[in-house]
Amino acid sequence: MTELVNGLKDALEYTRLYRDQIFVLKLGGEVLSSPEALDNVAVQVALLESLSIRVLVVHGGGPQASALSRQMGLQPEIVAGRRVTSPAVLEVAKMVYAGQLNVDVVAALRRHGVSSVGLTGIDAGLVTVHRRPPVEVTDDDGITRTVDFGEVGDVDSVDTRLLDVLLPRGHVPVVSSLAADSEGRVMNVNADTLAAALAGALGAQKLIYLTGAPGLLRDPDDPSTLVAFAAPEDLQALLLSKSVKGGMRPKVEACLRAVKSGVRRTHIIDGRTPDALLLELFTGGGSGTMIVGEREKRTYETAGR
Amino acid sequence: MTELVNGLKDALEYTRLYRDQIFVLKLGGEVLSSPEALDNVAVQVALLESLSIRVLVVHGGGPQASALSRQMGLQPEIVAGRRVTSPAVLEVAKMVYAGQLNVDVVAALRRHGVSSVGLTGIDAGLVTVHRRPPVEVTDDDGITRTVDFGEVGDVDSVDTRLLDVLLPRGHVPVVSSLAADSEGRVMNVNADTLAAALAGALGAQKLIYLTGAPGLLRDPDDPSTLVAFAAPEDLQALLLSKSVKGGMRPKVEACLRAVKSGVRRTHIIDGRTPDALLLELFTGGGSGTMIVGEREKRTYETAGR
Amino acid sequence: MTELVNGLKDALEYTRLYRDQIFVLKLGGEVLSSPEALDNVAVQVALLESLSIRVLVVHGGGPQASALSRQMGLQPEIVAGRRVTSPAVLEVAKMVYAGQLNVDVVAALRRHGVSSVGLTGIDAGLVTVHRRPPVEVTDDDGITRTVDFGEVGDVDSVDTRLLDVLLPRGHVPVVSSLAADSEGRVMNVNADTLAAALAGALGAQKLIYLTGAPGLLRDPDDPSTLVAFAAPEDLQALLLSKSVKGGMRPKVEACLRAVKSGVRRTHIIDGRTPDALLLELFTGGGSGTMIVGEREKRTYETAGR
Amino acid sequence: MTELVNGLKDALEYTRLYRDQIFVLKLGGEVLSSPEALDNVAVQVALLESLSIRVLVVHGGGPQASALSRQMGLQPEIVAGRRVTSPAVLEVAKMVYAGQLNVDVVAALRRHGVSSVGLTGIDAGLVTVHRRPPVEVTDDDGITRTVDFGEVGDVDSVDTRLLDVLLPRGHVPVVSSLAADSEGRVMNVNADTLAAALAGALGAQKLIYLTGAPGLLRDPDDPSTLVAFAAPEDLQALLLSKSVKGGMRPKVEACLRAVKSGVRRTHIIDGRTPDALLLELFTGGGSGTMIVGEREKRTYETAGR
Amino acid sequence: MTELVNGLKDALEYTRLYRDQIFVLKLGGEVLSSPEALDNVAVQVALLESLSIRVLVVHGGGPQASALSRQMGLQPEIVAGRRVTSPAVLEVAKMVYAGQLNVDVVAALRRHGVSSVGLTGIDAGLVTVHRRPPVEVTDDDGITRTVDFGEVGDVDSVDTRLLDVLLPRGHVPVVSSLAADSEGRVMNVNADTLAAALAGALGAQKLIYLTGAPGLLRDPDDPSTLVAFAAPEDLQALLLSKSVKGGMRPKVEACLRAVKSGVRRTHIIDGRTPDALLLELFTGGGSGTMIVGEREKRTYETAGR
Amino acid sequence: MTELVNGLKDALEYTRLYRDQIFVLKLGGEVLSSPEALDNVAVQVALLESLSIRVLVVHGGGPQASALSRQMGLQPEIVAGRRVTSPAVLEVAKMVYAGQLNVDVVAALRRHGVSSVGLTGIDAGLVTVHRRPPVEVTDDDGITRTVDFGEVGDVDSVDTRLLDVLLPRGHVPVVSSLAADSEGRVMNVNADTLAAALAGALGAQKLIYLTGAPGLLRDPDDPSTLVAFAAPEDLQALLLSKSVKGGMRPKVEACLRAVKSGVRRTHIIDGRTPDALLLELFTGGGSGTMIVGEREKRTYETAGR
Repeated sequence: MTELVNGLKDALEYTRLYRDQIFVLKLGGEVLSSPEALDNVAVQVALLESLSIRVLVVHGGGPQASALSRQMGLQPEIVAGRRVTSPAVLEVAKMVYAGQLNVDVVAALRRHGVSSVGLTGIDAGLVTVHRRPPVEVTDDDGITRTVDFGEVGDVDSVDTRLLDVLLPRGHVPVVSSLAADSEGRVMNVNADTLAAALAGALGAQKLIYLTGAPGLLRDPDDPSTLVAFAAPEDLQALLLSKSVKGGMRPKVEACLRAVKSGVRRTHIIDGRTPDALLLELFTGGGSGTMIVGEREKRTYETAGR
Repeated sequence: MTELVNGLKDALEYTRLYRDQIFVLKLGGEVLSSPEALDNVAVQVALLESLSIRVLVVHGGGPQASALSRQMGLQPEIVAGRRVTSPAVLEVAKMVYAGQLNVDVVAALRRHGVSSVGLTGIDAGLVTVHRRPPVEVTDDDGITRTVDFGEVGDVDSVDTRLLDVLLPRGHVPVVSSLAADSEGRVMNVNADTLAAALAGALGAQKLIYLTGAPGLLRDPDDPSTLVAFAAPEDLQALLLSKSVKGGMRPKVEACLRAVKSGVRRTHIIDGRTPDALLLELFTGGGSGTMIVGEREKRTYETAGR
Repeated sequence: MTELVNGLKDALEYTRLYRDQIFVLKLGGEVLSSPEALDNVAVQVALLESLSIRVLVVHGGGPQASALSRQMGLQPEIVAGRRVTSPAVLEVAKMVYAGQLNVDVVAALRRHGVSSVGLTGIDAGLVTVHRRPPVEVTDDDGITRTVDFGEVGDVDSVDTRLLDVLLPRGHVPVVSSLAADSEGRVMNVNADTLAAALAGALGAQKLIYLTGAPGLLRDPDDPSTLVAFAAPEDLQALLLSKSVKGGMRPKVEACLRAVKSGVRRTHIIDGRTPDALLLELFTGGGSGTMIVGEREKRTYETAGR
Repeated sequence: MTELVNGLKDALEYTRLYRDQIFVLKLGGEVLSSPEALDNVAVQVALLESLSIRVLVVHGGGPQASALSRQMGLQPEIVAGRRVTSPAVLEVAKMVYAGQLNVDVVAALRRHGVSSVGLTGIDAGLVTVHRRPPVEVTDDDGITRTVDFGEVGDVDSVDTRLLDVLLPRGHVPVVSSLAADSEGRVMNVNADTLAAALAGALGAQKLIYLTGAPGLLRDPDDPSTLVAFAAPEDLQALLLSKSVKGGMRPKVEACLRAVKSGVRRTHIIDGRTPDALLLELFTGGGSGTMIVGEREKRTYETAGR
Repeated sequence: MTELVNGLKDALEYTRLYRDQIFVLKLGGEVLSSPEALDNVAVQVALLESLSIRVLVVHGGGPQASALSRQMGLQPEIVAGRRVTSPAVLEVAKMVYAGQLNVDVVAALRRHGVSSVGLTGIDAGLVTVHRRPPVEVTDDDGITRTVDFGEVGDVDSVDTRLLDVLLPRGHVPVVSSLAADSEGRVMNVNADTLAAALAGALGAQKLIYLTGAPGLLRDPDDPSTLVAFAAPEDLQALLLSKSVKGGMRPKVEACLRAVKSGVRRTHIIDGRTPDALLLELFTGGGSGTMIVGEREKRTYETAGR
Repeated sequence: MTELVNGLKDALEYTRLYRDQIFVLKLGGEVLSSPEALDNVAVQVALLESLSIRVLVVHGGGPQASALSRQMGLQPEIVAGRRVTSPAVLEVAKMVYAGQLNVDVVAALRRHGVSSVGLTGIDAGLVTVHRRPPVEVTDDDGITRTVDFGEVGDVDSVDTRLLDVLLPRGHVPVVSSLAADSEGRVMNVNADTLAAALAGALGAQKLIYLTGAPGLLRDPDDPSTLVAFAAPEDLQALLLSKSVKGGMRPKVEACLRAVKSGVRRTHIIDGRTPDALLLELFTGGGSGTMIVGEREKRTYETAGR
């Protein structure tokens, strides 16, 4: 009883600060694969929404797409954390991202009383991409080769008009990582990058990655090397030092782009921890890694988190 | 050249009549399975939209779901034109309806310059269903048995608020046939029925089924028995006479419900014929079957189609 | 930390229920006389406001008016819980209610970041009263006499137009208990009655009296006789039994009128207890006395508080 | 039937392009004098309006004013394509332009279901002119003399506020060529110039002169010398070469001013040809003369007409 | 100086009462034929408009039409105060009403800073009439005959949508007495009747006839028999007694219809008297004849004029 | 009768000019202390409001505060026209300004049909001040000393959002001279300064001081030395010459600041003269002192007052 009241009073400052602000939430495959984790996220989003925070959810579904690919006799190929997408794999991506997982997320939110709307980047011209040309890729083992990622698009532009209609009315858009090029050809998009592009275009206050790791680690195998707080120049150094590997690489790159395009703060936290999101948002303590822009960094000491 | 101008002048009366009216378009599996047919529909929708007609598209995807089911080792079961939906089949439906086909329809419309938004009945609480209890079903052969359709929902209510926001802004909602019950459990819904429920709730002027048949036939095997025009009492008689079979049965039942709930006219036309939709809408001739309500019938002689 | 998150999650259901609802809060003299109690109320109102609850504060200031009266050589006279108001006492009331106390409440709210607007019932024609004619009054001792209350008005009508402009914009009106008659003559109004009239006119969801007592007691001298929950017929009986005395009498009568005019629930709680308001609103436990209307009573078992 | 559908599909690109754009239509005396031609224009305007194109009609009525002048014993005098307007002639102009012809145009549009509103430049301060001082005029025969045009105004400014209210509501303003100076004195205005001034002030997409000639001819007597397409510098040369004579001169000058003030395209077409307007607007072929601005010219090859 | 201030203070009660109310002003031929009278009316309308009164002006132009008819060799024919309108006379009416006089009124208002918009009943479907069938008419001399009034319309309906847009924006519509039937055929309308129909449709507070007489006289030849105040039953008696003759008859009949359709008060005053309108509106004295409805009559003693 | 009409016609130009403009009216203690003067001001404000002028009233109440202070045993101390405010005096100021006088003004306006809203600078964060540090003050006698004015604030900023909501809806805000610092501490503010700050922030057209003097006098004891018109440089000279003394000094300083911050004209007039306000506003003659900005001064000869 007292606990609740104290909680409410402690949260007061934050609820004021966050009201009517936009938060972009990227759900990783680890969250999507666990009904409990997804339910846990849904209840947290419901709470944010009840505090008049405008939430947009982005998701991909790599592990699930790989699983279905295999079930259908297609060997998944991932290079530098990004999926090579043949036309057959694109069909799998449509089924898994826009079909199975998007419906699961929307339904989980609906169960907790949130009005969510499942979308892809194709809807209402939301995201326009161009097909990625074959690129030199150096993988985690330092080997470089030319890769044609196939039906994979890189984001050219975002048209937020549909979101501008949905967000102020209390609908939570749930965007899966598909988009189309200017000719209307459907393509797979990296969900981490997509989340950063949407956050930038919307002028989001926060971009939060709910992942399967405790945050950004200097040594991926040693949880004690968690980077709690980082400015862009720190990240540049980390990226050069090659200690950022696998799926964490696009996340870190996306965070860098996001803060450059005006997102105030980006977070990489563990989506499997109960209440991770609320703890990060409403307590001074936080968890995981917070990445801020240049100017933000300088004022960090004095401002509340 | 003259052709165009004459066409425009002939269409003038209709464009006035239809402006800002809502048309609900149900796409059958035959349209969805042919890229050419889908493209053909998209260009027609684009034209309607440019004339300020508000279009909402509904689709299921029975044949495609059956195909994927088989590919994944599940034997599809259809009773009285409706799919029995086990939990595994529901996953298939999510992937095919909300994933593959919904993305295909949205992308086809986007290629023709239409701002479309892919949805399911789960989004924004659009459709609430209840799980269908086991029912006595008499199939086309007159055999009655008790069937549990599984994860299949019957529509309880429609909340059009999201559509009320999208339609006047020129977005074309594309709704695939999934919904949820009041507890948020996802269920398969008959797409014909869903289209009728949405048309009724929106006060649509027209509900149009684009099917793989030339219309309602008194003898399903004899195209010369096409019913060009029917009032509710005619349909009741036809339904009793058992000559309406298979997937046509839910369509006819849905048309009956739709006109009862205030939809002015419902049409069953052949979606594979090029320009079928425009011919039906903008010429006196029409094609396929038109079903009107009681009162409408009486004024039919004097009013334009 | 966990405490906060749990608090937030527990409160989720209530925040949804209360969003954009109007709560009318009557502050008693005991709250007004203690800077700590007032500050405590202000922080709670700030929290409610941050949850998009529309709060209106009403206050009188009996003890403070009596004190100033005495300081200025005027002997205060209270009959049946209501102040006899000579022209000189009316000047005191203006100074104390609209001047000293209203400014104190507005300033306390401003200190906690709430945009509050101090008003009286005279502003913008908010409350119209008529001068109370001399009435037969039976005091707590059963003695009946004819009393002319002087410059005291009884509420005829409420014009909520100014409040309708202020409340949705997040301003908290703070109304002190003065009003005018149709000729514009200023009069003193019983603040408890005023609060009930405003709550009724606004269709408030809750009317809450923050008093100097733990609630309504069957025996005013025995806190263990607290009436936790009461329906109108219970109160009628209590009023007849004469056990409701002094300033509690107008409160109970006001609660009765408020529930009759459509206010869903009224509460009489102890304003000096820290967090009394939040405890009452956001926990199942509650404190003090809750009074509901007829129909409400019947559904009380099943609905949350 | 197919004709219509093909016509609609061909027109699709144009209807999109033109929607909510403003077209200014100047009706020449030849159109106004023929009920059939006027009716023909009305049906075409009705079609444009049904496609959500915002149409504004401007007209003068030179031949009709001359006829009435003669009937009333006044000898009309035209210099360099512009009418000398004595006070008595101004009364004739008011009667013919604002009375007879304006009512005829408005009534013709009403007969075809268009909500039109008859105006002059005097209404709502629409057009402010100054009295034209006596000017040196060189007529088609090369003779120069000083002419006082009398009650003739040259446009100083346009106040579009009334039009800004009418056009988006689907009303078609029909403006006859009268205006007032800053003192409120009524004056005759050249209708070609007025049309260009209104088109410029409204940011119209098109300004179309419906005349009694097939377009601008290099040799006015030889229809085979039609100028199908011209840029400003071409017109300057033509004007200098003196081959542009009579009433065509103010039209060409007006077109030049219009494209300079931002109107995208101006057309001079034959208003007596059935469907001339629709052919020009909705087919690649066009008819008559199109005049574009500098930049427009450069992109003409690639852009649709 | 004091005069002005006293005037303002006296007018205060009226300005409040009239703000945002609609006044319909019918200008008679006597006002239209005198530039001074017209100017005098314009300055009074300017004042009303500056006090936020919504003014609509209606006019015909009988004497002027007769004069032009004669000038063009057409003998005017008036029966029972209404003009017989051959097709040739209709052309005259268009020229005089919609051309000459409408422009004069609009220009006079513009000179006094009023934004006026000249209209006819044809514009925007404002007034729909039917052609008056041949009727039995008893003239002032008691002789009855069958008269075909020709191109004369009787009002069927009024569509105020255009006026609803213009009036609140401070535009003063000036409507001349032409209208069209449902087929779009232009017809002459009695201006007195038109004014009453517009006043009724708009829910005007006042309908004021500015005429060439001091008001309604019991004996038309004796100004001392002025009827200062009349209720419907008084007028019925007067009409039966045949003392209401010529052009006064349609005015009185129109007043009767107007008060029946909800116009609060109608006035018949002398438009040639300087300040007649302001005196009537802003002083207790008034001038001319005031006609009120049944209920209004009963409250007349107590309410201000 | 004629008087009224002439008054209205004379005022026409002004009513146009002033419509929807904001006038800030500062009521001096001399006006507040006389029920007749206050009533007189109220009727004038009512008239302005009925002409759609937006009025904001500011008041202090120095003499009244001094009187109550003495009654409560506190000796008032005024230095250089500004009150030294101990905590006890602040309580008096709250009671007198926000309580007694504010209610009196609001009630007087209500009696004349004006919807007024009593405020202080504390409401809705209207005015933010900082506590004035001890300052060197030279009094009228040339003696300089360091004075700590106590709970006195100097204006830092004005947040007009609440006023922006109230003024266009026809509410007249009545602001008494209290405000709060950024910590929410209540302070006394000089009412003359407050009025100027509000006028500047609102972009008021006029700031008018209703005082107990005929205007600014070169010799305070000689009414014949009235300064009828002054530009800033004139005032600077006067202030240096020490002839501006007592309460007039802050008024003159405030006028200077107001014209610098964009207020077009400021007036110092005698609030006890009946109709002083209307005479000043609606006649060329004016009364009292008018102070204009630099540029205004240069155009004064040609423009109306």
